[in-house]
Amino acid sequence: MFSERVERLSGSLIREILAAAQRPEVISFAGGLPAADCLPALDFKGVPPALAQYGTSEGEPELREQITREAARIGLQCDPSQVLVLSGSQQALDLAAKLFIDPGTPVITEGPTYLAALQVFKLFGADITTVQQVDGQLPAATLAAALDSSKARLAYLIPTFQNPSGACYSVETRQALAEVIDAAGTVLIEDDPYRALSYDGDAPAPMVTHLKSASWIYCGSFSKTLAPGLRIGYLIASPDLMPYLLKLKQAVDLHSNRLGQWFISEWLKSGNYPAHLAGLQAKYKVGRDAMQTALEKHFADLADWQVPQGGLFFWLKLKTTRDTRELLKVALGEHNVAFMPGEPFYANQADGIGRLRLNFSHATPDRIEEGVARLAKLIRDTQ
Amino acid sequence: MFSERVERLSGSLIREILAAAQRPEVISFAGGLPAADCLPALDFKGVPPALAQYGTSEGEPELREQITREAARIGLQCDPSQVLVLSGSQQALDLAAKLFIDPGTPVITEGPTYLAALQVFKLFGADITTVQQVDGQLPAATLAAALDSSKARLAYLIPTFQNPSGACYSVETRQALAEVIDAAGTVLIEDDPYRALSYDGDAPAPMVTHLKSASWIYCGSFSKTLAPGLRIGYLIASPDLMPYLLKLKQAVDLHSNRLGQWFISEWLKSGNYPAHLAGLQAKYKVGRDAMQTALEKHFADLADWQVPQGGLFFWLKLKTTRDTRELLKVALGEHNVAFMPGEPFYANQADGIGRLRLNFSHATPDRIEEGVARLAKLIRDTQ
Repeated sequence: MFSERVERLSGSLIREILAAAQRPEVISFAGGLPAADCLPALDFKGVPPALAQYGTSEGEPELREQITREAARIGLQCDPSQVLVLSGSQQALDLAAKLFIDPGTPVITEGPTYLAALQVFKLFGADITTVQQVDGQLPAATLAAALDSSKARLAYLIPTFQNPSGACYSVETRQALAEVIDAAGTVLIEDDPYRALSYDGDAPAPMVTHLKSASWIYCGSFSKTLAPGLRIGYLIASPDLMPYLLKLKQAVDLHSNRLGQWFISEWLKSGNYPAHLAGLQAKYKVGRDAMQTALEKHFADLADWQVPQGGLFFWLKLKTTRDTRELLKVALGEHNVAFMPGEPFYANQADGIGRLRLNFSHATPDRIEEGVARLAKLIRDTQ
Repeated sequence: MFSERVERLSGSLIREILAAAQRPEVISFAGGLPAADCLPALDFKGVPPALAQYGTSEGEPELREQITREAARIGLQCDPSQVLVLSGSQQALDLAAKLFIDPGTPVITEGPTYLAALQVFKLFGADITTVQQVDGQLPAATLAAALDSSKARLAYLIPTFQNPSGACYSVETRQALAEVIDAAGTVLIEDDPYRALSYDGDAPAPMVTHLKSASWIYCGSFSKTLAPGLRIGYLIASPDLMPYLLKLKQAVDLHSNRLGQWFISEWLKSGNYPAHLAGLQAKYKVGRDAMQTALEKHFADLADWQVPQGGLFFWLKLKTTRDTRELLKVALGEHNVAFMPGEPFYANQADGIGRLRLNFSHATPDRIEEGVARLAKLIRDTQ
């Protein structure tokens, strides 16, 4: 009765855990939710009545221009015609999968990588080759070898404050990776939702700015910086891809909701956006530092990790390998603490055994200390 | 470089025409836009700040319950767990295509049918069999024969005030079609965005209410009754399909925007919704009657048509067969009047030669008379 692809359909473990972790007694490090007190007030005074009508598939013209200007600020020069407003940046993955992936199409991702990207690519039948991160960088030689052997049509990378690893590639790494991608003629999808959440200085310019010939899609989000409930993200693409992406967008939902687009547009022109971002950085840096302190206190003998310079997550490798999916059941069920197991962040889930992701943006510093202590005790007691 | 399906990717003629038809001097019968003065005021006073946060993939619980109650009012008894809120009802077609359609999967549609449904089904590789409407009904025996010979996995029907034909199937037709679908074990997708726009009495209960064993998806919209710019629609499905549809929804955009959901929820509980619908019916009935008067005056010797009892469109069959795509170019380019050519409403576009769709909800009665007169003169002068 169903299509062949349904055999490859997996649920989002994140969303199932988020549901269970919503009990108020649970200290949740599982999600990637903005802190409630960092969300903007939902002020819609002055919204033009005409926005109730159908809009254009490309997105509101003013917002597309503003996104172009924001992109220029981080070194990505583009024309508004290269911007497509989306119903959340997750939609970019759906459109890209439709544009590039047939059953058996070779695709490269980092190990680890964003689990919902793996879900979408697998749903469309991608044959995924994983290139492992080493010391928070992606070795260009390894990518070159993987491209050569897999003949990948598509490389999906998250070079900046990666989810889940927190890694941020250096300028040199970005240049080297871009050269490899240009040489192979592979399409690059650069997913960049965490860039604004930097705690130790700005991240290097996007990787796509180093490309000379390869086609590319750059994915941006307002869910981490303004309000995820609006469901507005965007992509910027090389001009050759835009006609296809636009038609695919039309077929999915005609256009993205205009209220959310207007709200973001008002923010971007208000002049308050840089201060809002600075506030987010200050707030989340406190969470980052609180978690680092708690981890040093409770996990020094249990796990290895890098301090993330941005984003929302710590990524731990336990010194004693164990299935963290099983650990989660006990942690959530008996100790009221939640985290994301490492396995779903790898195309080959066995690569993620003994790893776990901890979010530091949602819980208060006190709760972070308490939750990390609980988790460490559980691991220690069951080792 | 691209996936195999991209060869089957077609743009939306509707959206290209809408762009050209937006010049103020053009009298446009092309779109399916709500009248500007029928759109609700965008009042967001009192919106809960928490809606800025991520929401659930299923949709806001209160809205799901309200949709369940609205469904019961038209004879469709269901549980809120069968409701999935969508980013416009167009999204139901994308999810259904993913769930059911592989390259070569046999699918049945009416002739004519909604052109964007054809686009989505073709993109996923459907092998479409068309069952022609006869005198505003769909003959059950023809559907049975088509199901038997095609072994269709899916039947996509718009039984109520169809786009583009305006046809509304009788209770007897619905029962007979449902029996045929039950017997074949085919999945029914019933698309029902126009039901509330009825001008001569209520439409019969949805076709899915007559099914006894077949799986089904019922698609509903708020774009025709409240505000398309919100991009909120929904589906109601047989319980067996819900786990799959929910996971597919998660992979597309995580959830639909919460502002739009809240706005619709407020309307549904305000008590003003029935009066709003009555106002729409009264307004659009004036347009329907104005167009019928104009057609009788100018088109009696040029075309045949049925008076639609609901929806947004007249569907004309010219007495002298001609390619209405060519006619549109002249009409729009030289006479400032736009309509939708008939060809894109058929899987086999040649079936639509000499047909055209005229919208009556957007132009004023004066402009309707003027536009119909211009179009008749053009056809007469170039026959």
